[in-house]
Amino acid sequence: MEGRGEERFETKEMDIRSMPSSRHASLPYRVGVPPKQNFWTEFSSTVKETFFSDDPLHSFKDQSRSRKFVLGVQAVFPILEWGKRYNLKKFKGDLIAGLTIASLCIPQDIGYSKLANLSPQYGLYSSFVPPLVYALMGSSRDIAIGPVAVVSLLLGTLLQNEIDPINHPLEYRRLAFTATFFAGITQATLGILRLGFLIDFLSHAAVVGFMGGAAITIALQQLKGFLGIKNFTKKTDIISVMHSIFSSAYHGWNWPTIVIAAAFLVFLLVAKYIGKKKKKLFWVPAIAPLVSVVLSTFFVYITHAEKKGVQIVKHIEKGINPASVREIYFTGDYLLKGVRIGLVAGIIALTEAVAIGRTFAGMKDYQIDGNKEMVALGAMNIAGSMTSCYVATGSFSRSAVNYMAGCQTAISNIVMSVVMFLTLQFFTPLFEYTPNAILSSIIISAVIGLIDYDAAVLIWKIDKSDFIACMGAFFGVVFASVEIGLLIAVSISFAKLLLQVTRPRTAILGKIPRTNVYRNIQQYPEASKVPGVVIVRVDSAIYFSNSNYIKERILRWLTTEEEQLTTAGLPKIQFLIIEMSPVTDIDTSGIHALEELLRSLQKRDVELVLANPGPVVMDKVHASKLASLIGEEKIFLTVADAIQTCSPKFAEEV
Amino acid sequence: MEGRGEERFETKEMDIRSMPSSRHASLPYRVGVPPKQNFWTEFSSTVKETFFSDDPLHSFKDQSRSRKFVLGVQAVFPILEWGKRYNLKKFKGDLIAGLTIASLCIPQDIGYSKLANLSPQYGLYSSFVPPLVYALMGSSRDIAIGPVAVVSLLLGTLLQNEIDPINHPLEYRRLAFTATFFAGITQATLGILRLGFLIDFLSHAAVVGFMGGAAITIALQQLKGFLGIKNFTKKTDIISVMHSIFSSAYHGWNWPTIVIAAAFLVFLLVAKYIGKKKKKLFWVPAIAPLVSVVLSTFFVYITHAEKKGVQIVKHIEKGINPASVREIYFTGDYLLKGVRIGLVAGIIALTEAVAIGRTFAGMKDYQIDGNKEMVALGAMNIAGSMTSCYVATGSFSRSAVNYMAGCQTAISNIVMSVVMFLTLQFFTPLFEYTPNAILSSIIISAVIGLIDYDAAVLIWKIDKSDFIACMGAFFGVVFASVEIGLLIAVSISFAKLLLQVTRPRTAILGKIPRTNVYRNIQQYPEASKVPGVVIVRVDSAIYFSNSNYIKERILRWLTTEEEQLTTAGLPKIQFLIIEMSPVTDIDTSGIHALEELLRSLQKRDVELVLANPGPVVMDKVHASKLASLIGEEKIFLTVADAIQTCSPKFAEEV
Repeated sequence: MEGRGEERFETKEMDIRSMPSSRHASLPYRVGVPPKQNFWTEFSSTVKETFFSDDPLHSFKDQSRSRKFVLGVQAVFPILEWGKRYNLKKFKGDLIAGLTIASLCIPQDIGYSKLANLSPQYGLYSSFVPPLVYALMGSSRDIAIGPVAVVSLLLGTLLQNEIDPINHPLEYRRLAFTATFFAGITQATLGILRLGFLIDFLSHAAVVGFMGGAAITIALQQLKGFLGIKNFTKKTDIISVMHSIFSSAYHGWNWPTIVIAAAFLVFLLVAKYIGKKKKKLFWVPAIAPLVSVVLSTFFVYITHAEKKGVQIVKHIEKGINPASVREIYFTGDYLLKGVRIGLVAGIIALTEAVAIGRTFAGMKDYQIDGNKEMVALGAMNIAGSMTSCYVATGSFSRSAVNYMAGCQTAISNIVMSVVMFLTLQFFTPLFEYTPNAILSSIIISAVIGLIDYDAAVLIWKIDKSDFIACMGAFFGVVFASVEIGLLIAVSISFAKLLLQVTRPRTAILGKIPRTNVYRNIQQYPEASKVPGVVIVRVDSAIYFSNSNYIKERILRWLTTEEEQLTTAGLPKIQFLIIEMSPVTDIDTSGIHALEELLRSLQKRDVELVLANPGPVVMDKVHASKLASLIGEEKIFLTVADAIQTCSPKFAEEV
Repeated sequence: MEGRGEERFETKEMDIRSMPSSRHASLPYRVGVPPKQNFWTEFSSTVKETFFSDDPLHSFKDQSRSRKFVLGVQAVFPILEWGKRYNLKKFKGDLIAGLTIASLCIPQDIGYSKLANLSPQYGLYSSFVPPLVYALMGSSRDIAIGPVAVVSLLLGTLLQNEIDPINHPLEYRRLAFTATFFAGITQATLGILRLGFLIDFLSHAAVVGFMGGAAITIALQQLKGFLGIKNFTKKTDIISVMHSIFSSAYHGWNWPTIVIAAAFLVFLLVAKYIGKKKKKLFWVPAIAPLVSVVLSTFFVYITHAEKKGVQIVKHIEKGINPASVREIYFTGDYLLKGVRIGLVAGIIALTEAVAIGRTFAGMKDYQIDGNKEMVALGAMNIAGSMTSCYVATGSFSRSAVNYMAGCQTAISNIVMSVVMFLTLQFFTPLFEYTPNAILSSIIISAVIGLIDYDAAVLIWKIDKSDFIACMGAFFGVVFASVEIGLLIAVSISFAKLLLQVTRPRTAILGKIPRTNVYRNIQQYPEASKVPGVVIVRVDSAIYFSNSNYIKERILRWLTTEEEQLTTAGLPKIQFLIIEMSPVTDIDTSGIHALEELLRSLQKRDVELVLANPGPVVMDKVHASKLASLIGEEKIFLTVADAIQTCSPKFAEEV
């Protein structure tokens, strides 16, 4: 199979076959039939190209056994490899970056754990263990690991569909760990089975829409804390939330809370603006959240605003992550639910982490092995689920800060992890008087960045069907729920792929003036049709899903052309040339369709001619005896060659 | 969008633009950018091509209102249209054909209703009402309507998963009618929404495998009647059945039954062989089943073999179809189950009927409108579900007999229906002494024809992945169950389509000696590479599902080429030409991938050149400003033009 596997392609010298010396001689160039390939070589090269296209064992070739073992261990723990070249200068960068993302992380974690309906300490736990594991196993140098807004919201929504977090907090938490465990298993499995390419099926457009919708949903949820509302809907769609807000407008809003929240939101947004304008001041928006937390906590502490209805964090458990292996459901009804939720959350987390990894690797020009990365993320979540963490992944905003703060390696994650350790051990009581409103403001200012308006505009400009997927996901999330939005995004993406293989394009070709080139007359209106000949290009592989359509479409082109000729009183069509260049493959249904087409054409006295069938098509056309039905002499290398034979007079008019 | 919708494509005269007069002049031909299209025109033409590609309202154009009404009624009831041209000569053909298929139908119906775990009369009912409805609404002239083996088996398996047919016969029957009703609804809905193309997603190969597997499963099930076994497994997989047979070998087999069954099976197979050898004797295998029934019934009646353990039909309810509208579950738990089973059975029934319709229409050269046909089949099953029928569809074997017996129109179905009416009214008591073994023999000899060995061999020769789908479906049905087999067939078919859009082929091109044509060097080993240039052809639209892969694959081609050059000490690569002819579309992810590719190439000091991008690609490349990043002057009409600029010396060596 062409292009699959590492074929040798020595080019031979030019004159191995005696060919007519002139292009315009009567004998056209023969279309190559590739040598018959053994089934197993063909099969194994397909498998190799599908699953091992990056040739992951390349470096293991021709190595001694002990060397192979060392390489194997290094492949699982890349830190052993790059750690050898680690030095003080790199550490300086990592230290600053690590401290910066830690300061950003603490308030975000406390807020995000609320999105997941968990107590604040679980957010902090999830920024302690997973980054450590990732630092050992991951290959991205810039990613910042921890809980993220979208995954927290998704997990919270899916979990509370199963268990009420307020009445059954223990079962809820246990299911959360179960889901985290299976999210990790899902991620690691995809990596080990080298199925990483599956996440490519979430299209860029769908992700943009989904993220934007999730950001708006999360921001709306924050209005509870922002406005100090006590009775708030558990639904996440915009209509329920708006109803909740306005029905409590007179008696439910707490004005001191709103003042604090609004003041700090303005502060955070200004800090963000400064960071955007001057890249050097990236640390301003990075430390602004922690500064807000400190200032507002101090303010509440001295004014005792909590007595005026300003809700505060109250209590965060002190001490590092307790073990939670025994809390995971390995049997019973909740096992299956945990698997299902973990699968969805794990894949979404993966999509985000892989996108971040690729983006920053591209900027610093190093390679990321997607499958290996998935194993690292999976291992980190499995370890997390056993140490009271919920699903962690790479955070877009914190990774960007990490990058700008000059991180050099994953050591910055270890630095952040150490800060988390100290926070959990010593500083949690300090957050007692932190107003919830501040956390809401911090989350709102963080998720605003997920709404990628420019990307949506660009998608509209480039591809309308992508835009539909994007908007479908967006409105699905905003007006229904994250799950519905996700479902819409995936469905539209798939529908588009299937549409492409069901209704492929076809085009009528004409000759471009003063050349021997035949092109789509829609794109080149100056191209002229060849009298008595219809040239149709089929723009897709011919498979069972489209073979009937293609057959009928070609016959329809012929009918339309014939009608035009009849009205114009021109000679009738004698040849139908199918330009096969884009037809990269054909299956049994496709061969049947061509046979039927041939029969229909024979009834109409039109001859079927093929131009430039590829190696796979030639192989199958011969295997099925279709070649002899059409006639070997009616298969040409180019459309020009075919015209040379069908309409020699016209071909000379170059 | 090219090729979609009914565009006018007047070709203009040749010299509207002043172009360099020689092909080898320095200024290459400009690549056409199609005129910007309005979003709604584009959208509506896509919708039209997807759902109304056959332009179903063509004949309604420019007609008066009353004429439109008449045409509308005729569209729903084609009999009003062709009925006007009906004459005695045609009736003669239909009468003979109708009587022949009726004689074949009666014993088959009784047997097939057992596959569906229903009493014998329900099979006969299903050959009375549905054919009448089809004759009014259908457009195939050759199809023979009634119960068929595969759908009966499928329905029986799915239904008995929900309700035990022996202990709860009433509920079972009610669920059967419910499923039939929703099978009809599914079929009619697909037709009305013009989603008929969805059934094309069951590939030919998968259907061949599924049918073969179902035939073997059905034949194995018949061994119960054939061997006279009383305690038989309810499972359908080959291992359970074989175990059932051999565990009852000593005491469970009934030798008189086996003698009768074997004798008539030989008779039926000989009749079949005769019909195959001499096409004129088609009536021999057609009436052989009824003759067997009559002979064996008479034999049992006079010998009283039923007292020696030969099982007989015993009782068939007399009289035509009772109404069953009230038996359909429109509420409750069984509603949803009925919908699900109906959906599956309806689609499989549709696949069979549409395949038959297309095959015979092709042979007699008339057109079948797939969507209209689905509405007819749906209406017939809805009507059937209200008159005690289960899912009916077109039968392959009876349609072939119908065709060979010289049927002219759907009137042959009406004739068959009338015979059924008479049978139900008067002749059912005659079947009292019919041995079950005969029915088993008749079914075995009927389903053998569904095993299409030649088709499987051809599939193996043409396409190995199709063969895997075929065998997957086959073994799934034989070793697991019809549902599993179906699931495997659909999954493999889809996986293949998705693989195509995930791992498209790419090829390195070289110049074919003494031409200006560049082709895959795998297919044309004599083609020579251009020094300092790598020409890669991408064989698929670039979408989110493959954009990353394509980018990485192209870079890998470049790396491989560069390694070869370095070892050979040749000059380094300066240009990478992407031949875009097969790239029919690109989405936002694809544009991003090309941008990333461009950046990677710039770092390697290699220039990116595009050859022959199509109209859609050109449109999007311009919309995204990628055109200006690459440089308009680096987009060429042909690879030859590009080489002309990149490596002028080489290009002259024609």
